[in-house]
Amino acid sequence: MYRAPVEEIAFALKHVAGLKAAMDAGTFGDLGEDLVDAILGEAGRFASEEVAPLYKVGDRTGAKLRDGAVTMPPGWKELYRHWTEGGWNSLNGPEEYGGQGLPTMMGVATLEMWNSASMAFGIGPTLSMGAVEALEKHASEDLKSAYLAKLVSGEWMGTMNLTEPQAGSDLAALRTRAERSGDGTYRIYGQKIFITYGEHDFTDNIVHLVLARLPDAPAGTRGISLFLVPKFLLNEDGTPGARNDVFCSGIEEKLGIHASPTCTMIYGDGFAKGREPGAVGWLIGEENRGLACMFTMMNNARLLVGIQGVAVAETAFQKALAYANERRQGKASSYSGEGMAPIVHHPDVQRNLLTMKALTQAARAIAYSCAHAIDMARVSTGADKAHWQDRANLLTPLAKAFSTDVGVDVASLGVQIHGGMGFIEETGAAALLRDARIAPIYEGTNGIQAIDLVTRKLPLGNGEHVFGYVGELDGIAIAVAAMNSEAYGRTALILEQALDDLQSVTRHLQKQLGDGRTDDALAGATPYLRLFSLVAGGAYLARAALADGDERRIALCRFFAENLLGETAALKDRITGGTASLAAAAKALISA
Amino acid sequence: MYRAPVEEIAFALKHVAGLKAAMDAGTFGDLGEDLVDAILGEAGRFASEEVAPLYKVGDRTGAKLRDGAVTMPPGWKELYRHWTEGGWNSLNGPEEYGGQGLPTMMGVATLEMWNSASMAFGIGPTLSMGAVEALEKHASEDLKSAYLAKLVSGEWMGTMNLTEPQAGSDLAALRTRAERSGDGTYRIYGQKIFITYGEHDFTDNIVHLVLARLPDAPAGTRGISLFLVPKFLLNEDGTPGARNDVFCSGIEEKLGIHASPTCTMIYGDGFAKGREPGAVGWLIGEENRGLACMFTMMNNARLLVGIQGVAVAETAFQKALAYANERRQGKASSYSGEGMAPIVHHPDVQRNLLTMKALTQAARAIAYSCAHAIDMARVSTGADKAHWQDRANLLTPLAKAFSTDVGVDVASLGVQIHGGMGFIEETGAAALLRDARIAPIYEGTNGIQAIDLVTRKLPLGNGEHVFGYVGELDGIAIAVAAMNSEAYGRTALILEQALDDLQSVTRHLQKQLGDGRTDDALAGATPYLRLFSLVAGGAYLARAALADGDERRIALCRFFAENLLGETAALKDRITGGTASLAAAAKALISA
Repeated sequence: MYRAPVEEIAFALKHVAGLKAAMDAGTFGDLGEDLVDAILGEAGRFASEEVAPLYKVGDRTGAKLRDGAVTMPPGWKELYRHWTEGGWNSLNGPEEYGGQGLPTMMGVATLEMWNSASMAFGIGPTLSMGAVEALEKHASEDLKSAYLAKLVSGEWMGTMNLTEPQAGSDLAALRTRAERSGDGTYRIYGQKIFITYGEHDFTDNIVHLVLARLPDAPAGTRGISLFLVPKFLLNEDGTPGARNDVFCSGIEEKLGIHASPTCTMIYGDGFAKGREPGAVGWLIGEENRGLACMFTMMNNARLLVGIQGVAVAETAFQKALAYANERRQGKASSYSGEGMAPIVHHPDVQRNLLTMKALTQAARAIAYSCAHAIDMARVSTGADKAHWQDRANLLTPLAKAFSTDVGVDVASLGVQIHGGMGFIEETGAAALLRDARIAPIYEGTNGIQAIDLVTRKLPLGNGEHVFGYVGELDGIAIAVAAMNSEAYGRTALILEQALDDLQSVTRHLQKQLGDGRTDDALAGATPYLRLFSLVAGGAYLARAALADGDERRIALCRFFAENLLGETAALKDRITGGTASLAAAAKALISA
Repeated sequence: MYRAPVEEIAFALKHVAGLKAAMDAGTFGDLGEDLVDAILGEAGRFASEEVAPLYKVGDRTGAKLRDGAVTMPPGWKELYRHWTEGGWNSLNGPEEYGGQGLPTMMGVATLEMWNSASMAFGIGPTLSMGAVEALEKHASEDLKSAYLAKLVSGEWMGTMNLTEPQAGSDLAALRTRAERSGDGTYRIYGQKIFITYGEHDFTDNIVHLVLARLPDAPAGTRGISLFLVPKFLLNEDGTPGARNDVFCSGIEEKLGIHASPTCTMIYGDGFAKGREPGAVGWLIGEENRGLACMFTMMNNARLLVGIQGVAVAETAFQKALAYANERRQGKASSYSGEGMAPIVHHPDVQRNLLTMKALTQAARAIAYSCAHAIDMARVSTGADKAHWQDRANLLTPLAKAFSTDVGVDVASLGVQIHGGMGFIEETGAAALLRDARIAPIYEGTNGIQAIDLVTRKLPLGNGEHVFGYVGELDGIAIAVAAMNSEAYGRTALILEQALDDLQSVTRHLQKQLGDGRTDDALAGATPYLRLFSLVAGGAYLARAALADGDERRIALCRFFAENLLGETAALKDRITGGTASLAAAAKALISA
């Protein structure tokens, strides 16, 4: 059973990702450590005691579709109600609409806990919060006043409707139609797939944000508009009224996150009897500028999906550690007790557990640092704002892709530590792997994240922003070296080497892009994202260790450096030396 | 849908693993290429056309337990019958008992195909063949003549009963009791768990090989005996008669291989009404020497589970490649056709596909080479026999652990290539990952394999056998260098470096063991097994390329060297430099 690691989360927020310094500088008004700790403590209690116990019924029962209505697993509707009553949905919401206006960092940290307790539970509010952000930034005042307060409180939920069968990563291919109805509203027609929480019984209304094309729109991504399409049209008094012509026609049977309804949504097919076919929608932002609005949601959603990777890794680690302490097999020299040794004493099991813990904490530090950059961008102005916005943009693909890869790898190690029991569903270790496997895929596959990093983030600030960041990480390595402490082992040396690798590979990719050798750069994108993330994660673990000199933190950052950071050399080779053979082999073997 | 890669399998057997040279030398009598090709072709047809179509019903329906009887999925019983009628179960069986006496290599190659088509189908016969081997080597003539012919033909199936709730990796802890009944038979009492195909409706009888303790047996592994316990006792005429007191009390609900019944078996609990409680068993081999008998089965079963990793990786690759050719998203510079590019043209997808293919072929080459060593050991005498036996022993942990890790990694990459569709069960990509996940666990976890490699296999031949093998691999690297061909890129150089790493790390571990620093050696065991396997796999891919100079094989071995072999440096660091920090971190963080 998951126990929220409240102290570890608080420490990472404050001392690794920068919350403490920002609070000390008054950046977040009167937000102080006491309030931060109180919020995290209460969230931890709620996640551990109220969400986690409903994990299993969610996984086993799943969401059920019947006659267009989705029933959530037993107890889940009440759980959601308690959760919104606790104010957890409104944490980051704008104060004007009843939100608490707390930093993104707090939202991300609490979201980690909900997702650790149940990824299937966490993903619904994640997307709803994204809808809030898109509306707040781009919608008209009328739409905001009609919808935002209810979405912020969680009384209603929002969804993101992007994907169509032929349009997944490539949104240019989408075909859902929007027609002007003459009264300022639009009619939407088309089919969307993979719509998370597209239909459910949590709330009285569901507010769909839908990408569609107007008849006279240009082809490609410059012809996409964003619409708000509520499940129930609103009465004069703002309450849900007539059923809109949007229906769920199917839910997917998935590998994991069974309680999260993944819906096929049909717009404007006339299912709503007695009405003209066509789902009534309202434009958000300007016509044909929908993608820009959607990117507001997507960028944050990417970080929040990254947090799912951290979250499931944390739970998998806790579960594996508990099992390793309990399960006894064989002898171990470090165990002097009676009978067989708990397997936690076997060096091979220790390596797996430490790898799990180190990767989880590295991923957490990256994700929280990304959240910090988002917060700083929001409160800053001028060049500072641009700097922090660039930083958030740079870190988003790392936070999404690295963390979710870590989620899968750590969950898989967790299964392995359980031995045969890991393969039995009752144990719950396998369920975490099943859940974790979606996160590298949705909100932009990790391959797309790597392409985004190389082609859109390396050029930031004329290609200089990335080196500013690397310089900051280098400062950490130098600080470790300056400690001159045996406890850190070879951490400083290895970190310096890895930073050198990161720098030289970054220049290599920038040069390839500059020379128009885009395919070569793209061929190295995935190893580059991993290399970058390992270096950042290693540096952040060192920053954590330096922050208070705690023996455990030092041991973990040293373990990471001496056991995991060595991978960077191989990744560097793959990027600089491996792409020619990739092109040759692809030609000979797969696309011939 | 799986199509057996018959030519690739034949090539790997003949030109990488040594079958051709052995046949040319007359090692396997009149076995020649024509027969080999004919067998593989027909097996490929059967696997692709008869086994694979029943995969999905097996996964969806699973094996069902009711009133102690297990019903296999619809069509499976007939499938098994056709399969035994085709002679596939008897391929490696001893000729004296109706087997075809073909080399293990042929059994392994065909087993790969059954497992590619369905791991849940392949695992039953795998264990049954192990039972044949244990009986053939250790059982009395009476037992052999009563059981072997039926087990060889597949009319009956055999099982391995080792695991108990408290005794998984550590068999010393097992408690199942055996009592002498006075008439030469024994009565068995106890519970076994995780018994693969412990109960099913494929055959009229099931022959359990069961580890148990006699009342006066020494403690630990020197007090374990092996018994044959049939589901039905035999009548005078050898047909199944009275029900024995062994019953299946439950089957596990597992992550994957749903059609493989994983049974809890209760021995001697008196369920068989009207009889004295106690399952009637016959001793195999000598009292208290059961583990030695069981190791006969286990060693080969380890190789055969390794083949499951290769098998599922092959299927995952085929599925992903087909999807990547069909699915279109975005633009790619290498695609000049109309509309969106098939995703196989995207460099990142190509990297994933090539990684899948290269790892699969490397794992296959290692597994087949292990099978070759087993064959050579069987037909050799004197020093040659010892040499080949050592070689088989050395390669078994690599074949088991590396291949099954590859199975999981490749299946996971396959899910990723499918994008959102990969998470939908209907697509079938996720099912392969679910299936693959057991193979690193059963028949000795991969952690146990690594410990076996370091502590039992490195000392073989006074610690010299391993260097003889490395020397052979070095010969391949030298041959690549001698080609002096641009097409190989930096293959020779990288392979030489990796071989140097392997040698130095091997000496390092041998020294640690010699110095009694066992824990340090164990802490490096898993990275060492992977390092060893990557080097061997890389060398074998080069041997394949050298064998016929085929452009595709050269491209693949170069891709492996330039993209995957670089990992060896990091693994070396982890082994030589990482274990101190592991010990420190374990003390500080997890076993405190």
